[in-house]
Amino acid sequence: MPGEFELIARYFHRDLSAAPGVLLGPGDDCALLAPSDGMQLAVSVDTSVAGVHFPPDAPASAIGHRALAVNLSDLAAMGATPRWALLALTLPDVDEDWLHGFAAGFHALADRHGIALVGGDVTRGPLSITITVHGELPLVLNAASTIDRVSQPILRRDGASEDDLVVITGQPGLAHAGLKAWQSGQRDVLDPCLAAYLRPEPRIDAGMALRELASAALDVSDGVMGDLSHICRASQLSAAIELNQLPLAPELIAALGEQGAQQAVLNGGDDYELLLTLPEANLDAARAVLRASHLSLTVIGRMHTTQEEVHRVSLLKAGVEQIATGQSWQHFPANTTAEVSS
Amino acid sequence: MPGEFELIARYFHRDLSAAPGVLLGPGDDCALLAPSDGMQLAVSVDTSVAGVHFPPDAPASAIGHRALAVNLSDLAAMGATPRWALLALTLPDVDEDWLHGFAAGFHALADRHGIALVGGDVTRGPLSITITVHGELPLVLNAASTIDRVSQPILRRDGASEDDLVVITGQPGLAHAGLKAWQSGQRDVLDPCLAAYLRPEPRIDAGMALRELASAALDVSDGVMGDLSHICRASQLSAAIELNQLPLAPELIAALGEQGAQQAVLNGGDDYELLLTLPEANLDAARAVLRASHLSLTVIGRMHTTQEEVHRVSLLKAGVEQIATGQSWQHFPANTTAEVSS
Repeated sequence: MPGEFELIARYFHRDLSAAPGVLLGPGDDCALLAPSDGMQLAVSVDTSVAGVHFPPDAPASAIGHRALAVNLSDLAAMGATPRWALLALTLPDVDEDWLHGFAAGFHALADRHGIALVGGDVTRGPLSITITVHGELPLVLNAASTIDRVSQPILRRDGASEDDLVVITGQPGLAHAGLKAWQSGQRDVLDPCLAAYLRPEPRIDAGMALRELASAALDVSDGVMGDLSHICRASQLSAAIELNQLPLAPELIAALGEQGAQQAVLNGGDDYELLLTLPEANLDAARAVLRASHLSLTVIGRMHTTQEEVHRVSLLKAGVEQIATGQSWQHFPANTTAEVSS
Repeated sequence: MPGEFELIARYFHRDLSAAPGVLLGPGDDCALLAPSDGMQLAVSVDTSVAGVHFPPDAPASAIGHRALAVNLSDLAAMGATPRWALLALTLPDVDEDWLHGFAAGFHALADRHGIALVGGDVTRGPLSITITVHGELPLVLNAASTIDRVSQPILRRDGASEDDLVVITGQPGLAHAGLKAWQSGQRDVLDPCLAAYLRPEPRIDAGMALRELASAALDVSDGVMGDLSHICRASQLSAAIELNQLPLAPELIAALGEQGAQQAVLNGGDDYELLLTLPEANLDAARAVLRASHLSLTVIGRMHTTQEEVHRVSLLKAGVEQIATGQSWQHFPANTTAEVSS
């Protein structure tokens, strides 16, 4: 898009002289970065495609916010401090109003989390946004001053232990209700469900605060059942979730009813809350460190071993195993096998 | 694409235990990387959209090669050593044959340049490939052990000086002829023009070898005239190119005729040769270091100051300024202004 580069640069190039570790920002072949001494880099990439990951007619500022939020959420799930982002933007045409809104949504969230946009690429094509984020984490060296891969204080997926609690931040499910509301034509962006969907809040502070207290973590993009199964598989354990302990926001129950609310938490996603495992002894400390950010931490289950080779997530209601039947759950029949996730 | 992740992981996940600085590869929320002590990171992102940047019916292995090559070329243009890549792949559907070919083309080039695929993302949508590459460069500290942004030995665009030679690697233009050949229905992938277009060779070794000899550099994606104007603007200088000195491959003249060949070098792109400026005193040394990779370095012009504020690229033929007229060039009329690039 010759000539249009200038226009686009106007929306995305900013003064980076105060951004930590940025030796050269956009405009050359590469950005140049000076990683901090004694740190390791956490790097992640995510693509948001119009009509697949977001409604093309959503407010441009929400699209900019959301595209960055889902990437920051990956840093949160690792406990990393956000540092640098690269933005690859594929646009069907150059719409200055849209670019202005998109950039405003992107930069507002970026500024709040101290992540600098150091490079990018703009191409012509179907609307799609790919963001690469870089965060930093302490790099622990062992006695011989070499790197020991397993002893790093990182929120990996494979660190859960038997009897660890399964906990979740905040009040998940609202974004799923918001997606349904958007699809049904609601456009009141101040509605708590719609707001949760359009502008999810990456749990950066929580991830950093819980880095040394939790044993495993990920961000919930596909619902608790599916995402917890990733931790089970990586950690070679099973998990049991208690239906009655799910944190259901009153607005969520108002929007979807109680069973719909449970369904949203278990199988909906898009909130990008953190799902973690931790030793019971760390629970009070974990809740204490989240108090500063006014974020709740709810125990929803526990990790356990299984005699079989399979690692699965089971659902209990008042301690009795359930099986999903459409939009509801029933007692688990003794002689069938629940969905296996390993 | 639930369920398809496994399939895709099969093509892209590889053993990274020997990859330098990779603490954690694909499969968690982030990849974890340990940048080398005393180095800075060069980072770049590029998107290739089907039908815009490559023909959708090109061989899948060529698409995989080319998508990575254009990114590696940005590292080459900075003089950086390739380290880590992230791949965001948007696919209309899961075609195992296509994925197999794409991965083969990608990994063959990646292995040759020692860049490890540490993370990625696969989404459903119109075929599009976004790659983020990370390279490393020495980080020079000044006497006070702090970072001096301007004294880094980096191939930036703004380092050209008056009287520096303008040089180019290899024999550009072939890829432009290859694009035309592809568009006209030729499919002989062993044809030198088609091969140059489908499988451009990023000049990684040349970039690293010339890092301390050249004053400025970029990779040629849009032709010498346009890309040299970026160096002119960044370095606040003008440049004169001598038409008779352009390195024209016999295959290029055979394909396009002499004027078509000149046009391909000046305004075509896609070869990803390096365009550099350097002091005349460094020319012999620069040619000597490229001999190991059997790569030629041709002087095609010189940087100069101008009395006006504008910085432009002028075209000479036997020393007489020319102006483009369609597919040809004529003497530059004294009382008109050439295309201004600042």
